[in-house]
Amino acid sequence: MLENICIVLVNTTHPGNIGGVARAMKNMGLSDLCLVAPKLFPHEDAVARASRADDLLDNALVVETLDEALADCHLVVGTSARSRTIPWPLVNPRELSAIVAPLPADTKVAILFGREDRGLTNDELQRCHHHVHIPVNEDFSSLNIAAAVQVITYELRMAVVEGQDSVDKPQWGTDWDVELADNRELELMFEHLEQTLIDVEFLDPDKPRNLMPRLRRLLLRSVPDKVEVNVLRGMLTAIQKKQQP
Amino acid sequence: MLENICIVLVNTTHPGNIGGVARAMKNMGLSDLCLVAPKLFPHEDAVARASRADDLLDNALVVETLDEALADCHLVVGTSARSRTIPWPLVNPRELSAIVAPLPADTKVAILFGREDRGLTNDELQRCHHHVHIPVNEDFSSLNIAAAVQVITYELRMAVVEGQDSVDKPQWGTDWDVELADNRELELMFEHLEQTLIDVEFLDPDKPRNLMPRLRRLLLRSVPDKVEVNVLRGMLTAIQKKQQP
Repeated sequence: MLENICIVLVNTTHPGNIGGVARAMKNMGLSDLCLVAPKLFPHEDAVARASRADDLLDNALVVETLDEALADCHLVVGTSARSRTIPWPLVNPRELSAIVAPLPADTKVAILFGREDRGLTNDELQRCHHHVHIPVNEDFSSLNIAAAVQVITYELRMAVVEGQDSVDKPQWGTDWDVELADNRELELMFEHLEQTLIDVEFLDPDKPRNLMPRLRRLLLRSVPDKVEVNVLRGMLTAIQKKQQP
Repeated sequence: MLENICIVLVNTTHPGNIGGVARAMKNMGLSDLCLVAPKLFPHEDAVARASRADDLLDNALVVETLDEALADCHLVVGTSARSRTIPWPLVNPRELSAIVAPLPADTKVAILFGREDRGLTNDELQRCHHHVHIPVNEDFSSLNIAAAVQVITYELRMAVVEGQDSVDKPQWGTDWDVELADNRELELMFEHLEQTLIDVEFLDPDKPRNLMPRLRRLLLRSVPDKVEVNVLRGMLTAIQKKQQP
């Protein structure tokens, strides 16, 4: 299970932090590292901080866009330091682990970590099913990115390997009989939804307000499977066909 | 409660690690840092890695011996990467937090972290009531010292501040009506015990084997209170008085 969890670092500035993340991951038994448009990589500082986890750096997937990073992922989780304008399903690392541990073994999970200074953008956070927040001292809340990866991967290891998840398992992950939708399928569905809402003039592209974010949050929270997404797409197609020319 | 938990770094080699520890502590709301014979301190690398947690470095207690560090502590916990020749009560960070959280609020707890390359010595580990081990990937188990502090202090924060301790609370910490013995009292008691055992020729100072470590483990595991220590001391005095000249 741990090998299906991908740590995705978005626009990391300091290569030393990438190395620190690799070391933290390997300590906890994770190996899948993805770098979205890193500022400097490969870099000697990354190798130095990685200690003997440099194999994770060698095997890291480096991509230009978050879309490429997430294409085959089923569950996307964003790390969030602040509360945002639109509240999103927010869990702590232990609750996250209790969500991840009972998922079918072939579920691919991505956990996104943002820039050292600004974290993830609102657009990036709205790609996520859940947000995870590490409870910190509010007077000194800026956690080093490798430290944040260490805490979250520790909790995942505790739940998956040690079987010490303490939170009741969520309903939806257990005994699932249909494969979960992957991110590409979900994004195509949201594009379809948005276009349909524009078509029916419910959504004004010049004044979108928070309509799509709210719908994303609603649908992502349920972690739809492939059949559900197909049903939604079929519904949207039907709506589009039925509208007045 | 968190302010009564002291992080004790023993013979740290790299000052950058001291800074990383300070940052990890402050993120989780701890402030009491003690340095036993650090190799280089103060040092600019410590300040750099501490980010804005340099107030913890300014206020750190720097001492020459572990005795000075532990004198007023009631519960001493040592971090241990390896299993030792003599097994000691071993907990993971979550179980440790479940032990610490219900302690009386004025209990002073020390958590010891050893050298980057060799950890704590057997003598140092035998000063401890419990050992704590972070479950790691056994193929890559060398955790950076700041990462280890991050994980342990995160669990303490989760238990103390967030109230999410998941393990049943131990019997002995709750509703305690006598103050726990502090480390100075315990060490005097062990000295007294050792001398008494030598006096009675049960312990051969030239062939001590593991007698004292086994007795330490037995007594420390029960986390004695002041009255119990006084009873033990009184017993030892009585034994010494009664021996043949």
